[in-house]
Amino acid sequence: MAERKLHLNAFLMGVGHHEAAWRHPRTDVSALDSVAHFQNLAKIAERGTFDSVFLADGVQIWGDVRHSIANRFEPVTLLTALAAVTEHIGLIATASTGFSEPYNLARLFASLDHISGGRAGWNIVTTAGDRSAQNFNRDTNFEHARRYERAAEFLEVTTALWDSWEDDALIVDPAAGVYADDTKVHEINHRGEWFCVRGPLNATRSPQGRPLLVQAGSSEDGKAFAARWAEAVFTAQQTFEDATTFYTDLKRLVAKAGRAPEHLKVLPGIVPVLGGTEQEARALAEELDDLIIPTRAVRQLTEMIGIDLTDHPLDEPLPALPPVSHINGAKSRFELVRDLAERERLTLRQLLARLGGGRGHQVVAGTPEQIADHIELWFRNGAADGFNVMAPLLPSGLEDFVETVIPLLRSRGLFRTEYEAKNLRGHYGLPRPESKFAKQPLATVG
Amino acid sequence: MAERKLHLNAFLMGVGHHEAAWRHPRTDVSALDSVAHFQNLAKIAERGTFDSVFLADGVQIWGDVRHSIANRFEPVTLLTALAAVTEHIGLIATASTGFSEPYNLARLFASLDHISGGRAGWNIVTTAGDRSAQNFNRDTNFEHARRYERAAEFLEVTTALWDSWEDDALIVDPAAGVYADDTKVHEINHRGEWFCVRGPLNATRSPQGRPLLVQAGSSEDGKAFAARWAEAVFTAQQTFEDATTFYTDLKRLVAKAGRAPEHLKVLPGIVPVLGGTEQEARALAEELDDLIIPTRAVRQLTEMIGIDLTDHPLDEPLPALPPVSHINGAKSRFELVRDLAERERLTLRQLLARLGGGRGHQVVAGTPEQIADHIELWFRNGAADGFNVMAPLLPSGLEDFVETVIPLLRSRGLFRTEYEAKNLRGHYGLPRPESKFAKQPLATVG
Repeated sequence: MAERKLHLNAFLMGVGHHEAAWRHPRTDVSALDSVAHFQNLAKIAERGTFDSVFLADGVQIWGDVRHSIANRFEPVTLLTALAAVTEHIGLIATASTGFSEPYNLARLFASLDHISGGRAGWNIVTTAGDRSAQNFNRDTNFEHARRYERAAEFLEVTTALWDSWEDDALIVDPAAGVYADDTKVHEINHRGEWFCVRGPLNATRSPQGRPLLVQAGSSEDGKAFAARWAEAVFTAQQTFEDATTFYTDLKRLVAKAGRAPEHLKVLPGIVPVLGGTEQEARALAEELDDLIIPTRAVRQLTEMIGIDLTDHPLDEPLPALPPVSHINGAKSRFELVRDLAERERLTLRQLLARLGGGRGHQVVAGTPEQIADHIELWFRNGAADGFNVMAPLLPSGLEDFVETVIPLLRSRGLFRTEYEAKNLRGHYGLPRPESKFAKQPLATVG
Repeated sequence: MAERKLHLNAFLMGVGHHEAAWRHPRTDVSALDSVAHFQNLAKIAERGTFDSVFLADGVQIWGDVRHSIANRFEPVTLLTALAAVTEHIGLIATASTGFSEPYNLARLFASLDHISGGRAGWNIVTTAGDRSAQNFNRDTNFEHARRYERAAEFLEVTTALWDSWEDDALIVDPAAGVYADDTKVHEINHRGEWFCVRGPLNATRSPQGRPLLVQAGSSEDGKAFAARWAEAVFTAQQTFEDATTFYTDLKRLVAKAGRAPEHLKVLPGIVPVLGGTEQEARALAEELDDLIIPTRAVRQLTEMIGIDLTDHPLDEPLPALPPVSHINGAKSRFELVRDLAERERLTLRQLLARLGGGRGHQVVAGTPEQIADHIELWFRNGAADGFNVMAPLLPSGLEDFVETVIPLLRSRGLFRTEYEAKNLRGHYGLPRPESKFAKQPLATVG
């Protein structure tokens, strides 16, 4: 059996993951408007033989527009532009099951997979918050469990649509005038609680069969969903103990769902703040934290955990927070923030600094050796199959990571030195799914 | 006043617009699967200084899969890949108001406009047919007038979303920590019959303000919609007389709607079958018609006009067709087909040959001079502001057009020799819309 290898995803976000990145002298705000900036980031990550790059997304404006950076680009289209300048690296876009139709979403991702030659991944989100719902004909959002019920049915439909053209459905014989074997193109005839979809999809089967399915929810509903569907999970873990508990629990659930545990890769987020010395790294982290705008950060925290803290004094400890059962937003992120604040008895201002680097993801400031040690420790001891790398400043933080940390990971035999597989599933060591309709005698398209 | 100039759109479709193009020895079916093929087409069109390229689309499988070519690529993503290899040419994608949400669609087109530097256009379709509806939770489609009611409200919402960030909303002052002027970012608070959308859009205002709005419906409802919203209309006209009648009527409706008639460009479709001599051109047209598969063509005709002709004998004239008021599909295309068959007393087989070249668009076989004469005649005499060029074979038919017809149009002073404007609206001589929220004292985003 081949030695187990590390998997690395480069999470791309504007000019950096630290919320004050755009205010730091090492970044250039004009990059926010530049496709070339994002294309450059993808090329840097590909030079570092990352498995994939990833873009987050939502369906509303986040934070207050006065102090928060707004998107220009939608992920699937931006990744298509990145596909044009890269050859190997995977391209993972976030899209919501809450506010789109399965047929449209399946089509978009099939198209990205075709265009990129088998490099598409879908980060599946259910989307919390009433503000999002209000852009889609509703006053309030569905409650947490209902969102996951919709997501589960959404996945039943989209995977069936991707399967609706079997791998060998295409004949393409111009002389005979035969394009496809119509016995291998299937209606899906889904009739469920949320969706009724006849099919087939109006796109032939894409190189990967289905895009890589990624997920980030870590609540009980989220883990159950991941155990059934996810092939990679981007998770936020603040301590080694929490990370091993989550890892063990999720792998157990995957096995219980009848899947091979190694077919789901767990990738905690890490914000690597790099310096030539530990002191330099800590100085950079402090520079960034000093640039946080408290009113903006409080508003983001309020949106993140669903508890209004805008009138809470900055230098007092957090108020007592309700049990997670009362939360209808992102439950696992709420628990992470609550545990962090309680464990370290943080004031609101201290908590904002702790969250400013990575919105709940772990910030590790240190030398390249220290970052590599951290990654190796978690990888070798049941806390992670790899990492979701969230550079605090972009492009510099990703460049530094590729030039200083990646060589260490390679020299330790943990990470590939060149791409070995031909598509995104291959990079993550995942199988290509067979069409669910293969070998079944089913009705043809009428 | 500047001299009136011709506008040309290159309608890209697989390996050609003739339905038997993929069976002809001059095409390569492997191109159907190739992004590079479409990128090459866009580069050829840009060499010919076309205003734009355009991709059709639907939300179902068309025709029978055994004999019909199915899509791999979705238009917005494919055009993003074309944006990466071109600099000037406009990029027009078809998307339906019937089966998507305004917030998602507005976001996608804003993103394409950002990525391409102001080259995005939206061909607005309402989508006929129950098969499409059955992919979106319905058994039957909305009836014709209701589809246009939905489309009108859809446009109210999307244009308001594109306007929700005013042109000068962005401040981006890192030192002060101010990203945007929150008095210039607006909720749209739309509450209508079909949609309730709060806004603002989660994308800053794009280079063109709004994408170019294109439309193709030519029914009475379609023309009323075009008069209110469209900036370019792709129409199908078989005769000069029909074309001038349509042109005059639509320009009158535009003026009646309070808009300048020159702010809507009328572009009839033309399928140019080119040869060094007229005889050569006619021979190519015949070769292509001989490759039509009748069973497939009958099925496409049935879907196009909404009348089942699959059991009608090929060599008999069409049966009497019902009045257009009984048609719930594409009304104007039904009328065009009925009038063509009646005017020329065509058998079903003859009608299929007439439609095989361009699905109702005019096929003109001849020398480059004859094609240029045809274009000039229509352009100078009130039948067209330009043409939607539908090459029967791709890439060869588009290459031939660019190398032989474009130089004639240029030498006659009808067409540009280089790009003069910096975005798609500029190519078509259309103004950049101001945000509807500009200069109004409105509530800010809370």
